[in-house]
Amino acid sequence: MNENILGIIAGTLTSISMVPQLVKVLKEKNVEDLSWVMLLVLIIGVSLWVWYGIIKGEWPIIISNTFSVLLNITLLICYMIYRKK
Amino acid sequence: MNENILGIIAGTLTSISMVPQLVKVLKEKNVEDLSWVMLLVLIIGVSLWVWYGIIKGEWPIIISNTFSVLLNITLLICYMIYRKK
Repeated sequence: MNENILGIIAGTLTSISMVPQLVKVLKEKNVEDLSWVMLLVLIIGVSLWVWYGIIKGEWPIIISNTFSVLLNITLLICYMIYRKK
Repeated sequence: MNENILGIIAGTLTSISMVPQLVKVLKEKNVEDLSWVMLLVLIIGVSLWVWYGIIKGEWPIIISNTFSVLLNITLLICYMIYRKK
């Protein structure tokens, strides 16, 4: 398979993987079983992948990880809003 | 920064990001707020990233995503064990 097509499919799947989780959180307003450490580490990690993609000039990596950064920041904000005090 | 070092740091962070989530699930045996769709899509996505890494010969991508595949499969198995019938 062409590496760019493969990269786009892989990137799309890993990027959208957090969408069902975000929908679930927004619908149920319950985040007790989620780990905020997971979210924070993930945000830093995918941000570095964006940087890596920029250096290597590989846009499937840049686009998919930028989307992941935004999605996980949204999820972290939801976590802070919905968590029980 | 050297691209390989950056790739290793980025890969390590995105790989280990699911570890706190797994620890939380194993400790609390509660998965109600997790989305199994997220886990399934993530497993397919990171598997394709492994394939992408093999084609491009980029081992930071191969190693970190292989670790992610194994971790997320473990999390999906935990989900199936702990979810309420």
